Amino acid sequence: MPLFLTTSPLPLAMPNTMPDSILIHNCTLLTAPDTPLLANGWLRTQGGTITAIGSAANLPQPENPEATTIIDGQGKLLAPGLINGHNHCAMTLFRGLADDLELATWLGEHIFPAEARYVNQEMVYHCSKLAAAEMILSGTTTVADGYFFEGQAAQAFVDTGMRAVAAQGIIDFPAPGVPDPSRNLETVAQFLDAWQGKHPRITPAIFAHSPYTCSARTLQRAKELATTRQAPFFIHVAESRQEQGMIRAPQGTSPIRHLAALGLLDPRTICIHCVWPDDEDLDLLARSEAGVVVCPQSHLKLASGMAPVSAMIERGIRVGLGTDGSASNNGLDMFKEMALLSKIQKVYTLDATALSARQALRCATVSNGALLGLGNIGQLLPGYKADLILLDMRQPHLTPCSNQDLLVYAANGADVHTVIIDGRMVMRDRKILSFDVQATMQEVRKLASTISRHRE
Amino acid sequence: MPLFLTTSPLPLAMPNTMPDSILIHNCTLLTAPDTPLLANGWLRTQGGTITAIGSAANLPQPENPEATTIIDGQGKLLAPGLINGHNHCAMTLFRGLADDLELATWLGEHIFPAEARYVNQEMVYHCSKLAAAEMILSGTTTVADGYFFEGQAAQAFVDTGMRAVAAQGIIDFPAPGVPDPSRNLETVAQFLDAWQGKHPRITPAIFAHSPYTCSARTLQRAKELATTRQAPFFIHVAESRQEQGMIRAPQGTSPIRHLAALGLLDPRTICIHCVWPDDEDLDLLARSEAGVVVCPQSHLKLASGMAPVSAMIERGIRVGLGTDGSASNNGLDMFKEMALLSKIQKVYTLDATALSARQALRCATVSNGALLGLGNIGQLLPGYKADLILLDMRQPHLTPCSNQDLLVYAANGADVHTVIIDGRMVMRDRKILSFDVQATMQEVRKLASTISRHRE
Repeated sequence: MPLFLTTSPLPLAMPNTMPDSILIHNCTLLTAPDTPLLANGWLRTQGGTITAIGSAANLPQPENPEATTIIDGQGKLLAPGLINGHNHCAMTLFRGLADDLELATWLGEHIFPAEARYVNQEMVYHCSKLAAAEMILSGTTTVADGYFFEGQAAQAFVDTGMRAVAAQGIIDFPAPGVPDPSRNLETVAQFLDAWQGKHPRITPAIFAHSPYTCSARTLQRAKELATTRQAPFFIHVAESRQEQGMIRAPQGTSPIRHLAALGLLDPRTICIHCVWPDDEDLDLLARSEAGVVVCPQSHLKLASGMAPVSAMIERGIRVGLGTDGSASNNGLDMFKEMALLSKIQKVYTLDATALSARQALRCATVSNGALLGLGNIGQLLPGYKADLILLDMRQPHLTPCSNQDLLVYAANGADVHTVIIDGRMVMRDRKILSFDVQATMQEVRKLASTISRHRE
Repeated sequence: MPLFLTTSPLPLAMPNTMPDSILIHNCTLLTAPDTPLLANGWLRTQGGTITAIGSAANLPQPENPEATTIIDGQGKLLAPGLINGHNHCAMTLFRGLADDLELATWLGEHIFPAEARYVNQEMVYHCSKLAAAEMILSGTTTVADGYFFEGQAAQAFVDTGMRAVAAQGIIDFPAPGVPDPSRNLETVAQFLDAWQGKHPRITPAIFAHSPYTCSARTLQRAKELATTRQAPFFIHVAESRQEQGMIRAPQGTSPIRHLAALGLLDPRTICIHCVWPDDEDLDLLARSEAGVVVCPQSHLKLASGMAPVSAMIERGIRVGLGTDGSASNNGLDMFKEMALLSKIQKVYTLDATALSARQALRCATVSNGALLGLGNIGQLLPGYKADLILLDMRQPHLTPCSNQDLLVYAANGADVHTVIIDGRMVMRDRKILSFDVQATMQEVRKLASTISRHRE
């Protein structure tokens, strides 16, 4: 049993030992979203880093064969691990709790009450581990998470082998672990104290819920803390058409202009959703270099709308991609999310050339990495983090394979065969090696058995 | 090597023998889209038919244990096999041939030329088998296919164990296997002669390409033949906004009114796409009891638009669901299609309660079965065809499991573990038993290696 402490990380050793070096050879390489596939390639890691990449012609002999794990990648595609730019990992508990409902009903009558009742340290730990299992099994190697009891989430990421930007929530209501909202800033400061610089795979951050659940003063103080501590700052904004009437700001101000007026928009702020920006909002996002993360499946399922992503990219806005939590998606497969990102833009603009497969791949890899301030992930380059996925391409639905567009338009998370994070093998042949997934599923089922559902 | 004959079916024996009876027990049962899940259930088949269903309390002893295959379904969900209401199976060869292009460019500059050059009997046979593999692996047990050399496609369905409505194409241009369009009706009549009543899993049908590629006379003659022969009649219609200007009809007539005026709409006609019906069109579809099959992923990817499915269902129009061919989707996973059907309606109507998960399940099972005139598939009921899928529910992304909505909002085709079609096990533990998939993939790769692509 893990100890449940919000303030102190427990970097437990993972059960499998980390090899000194991994050499993957005889595979097809996707080094970057826009680069043609490299046939018969190889890649080598040392510690947590990619050290060399090449084609068969110059395949190196391992310097230290005993400390090298050699993987024959025949029939496989080696690609950068995917990055999930927005998640509430612990909400796996609420998967399917209440489907096919309006955002306000869903949130007010189902999600907020369930959170008040069922969210505790143990729940966040186990349910975040379950999310990690699902993400690893579908090729995601880094997640940006935002929730309460975030120390438990961070610990779950440590224990499962994930890389994470873990953001403690701030909201002006009593929240899980923060019964007195006047102490929400103090709680987040303690969380940063506990996790900054403590674990190489964990970047602690701040997640202000929204401009309709946080006052202007809370938002400003939270952002000031983020700036002082050089921490990423996340906020849900412009998710629904109704939000404009709900924000705590002068009438006529848009949610995004409200954030801008408070001085919240800068390159370390990540605006989640942005489904309903107007022209002026888009200019503010572009000029401030704030990041935007869209969650197309959640936007559809909650009927929030379609974010104008092509227009954002054309204006130079930095756009990333996330799944949102399992209560509104209801899965965490970034392959599905990439497919939707691209396809939704095509129908939104009625232009089939809009948001190509490669742009979607870019959002889920390089762009997400840059947004999150983790500049050395999302591509296969020497010096980059060894966050890698191997996909089994010898399957009917991936035949024939012409190029990487297939990853967006035909592949599934289940095609991922092997996952390496920070140079460590966390999944091989679809078996998770870094922790006991069966035990985690059992814990979550036990928690779920106490919850009543919206529908039989 | 199979023989390639368009006119004469070759009902080859499948390599695995068919057990007399299958008993699946100890599983969760989804008997119909709207019925609550039945825990600890069992189901029994005899020949190609479901003979009994129950819960553990009354689990029967096999009458003839030696001729009964017993499957322990622990941790699994037994559901009706999914039905794909629209596909061009042989187009697996063109998967990823030309992505991110406008419909007219895609069709005129890439698909039609590729079809003219590469479609032949051998191609249709092997590429339809590849599609069958992909469909079986993702839980589809029946497909409605429309293409040329359809006798080869039908033979592929026979040889792979699929159930199919196989429709021979009609178009007023030189087409694969029909170089002289004046003989297109004769070709389809020969196809019906060859396949009607010949194989219990194959229903031959007619597929008129569209009102912009077929003259009024061709459409009427084709529908007359379908009526005389009591065969299903498919037609692409109202797929794009531009189609109104392209049809061979008086100005101002909508594509659907054009079909109605020609007497084409009746309960045995299935209108594919219907993305842009107006109010009058919806009335005509409802009154005629014609079927509609929508293909949401293809509609998004080709930027065709969003079909008003909720409005159709409200008016009592019979709506089914299909994937379309692999060149425009680019996969054949009906789980993805169900998710999109539901989610797209929510954003299209900006109403999160629109088109529930269960309505999507209904479209992909019972409704598709009824549309296709195969009334005894799509549910688990005694007397219905034994077309069954078992899903492995003990996976992180399906945990916790509250109800069948999870099948639409979280499951993937890859969760399907076992597939039974017509009482015969065609896949078990994700291994296809009914034919040699590796050999089929090899054949298709060989064909694909000769094709140049739009993009590296």
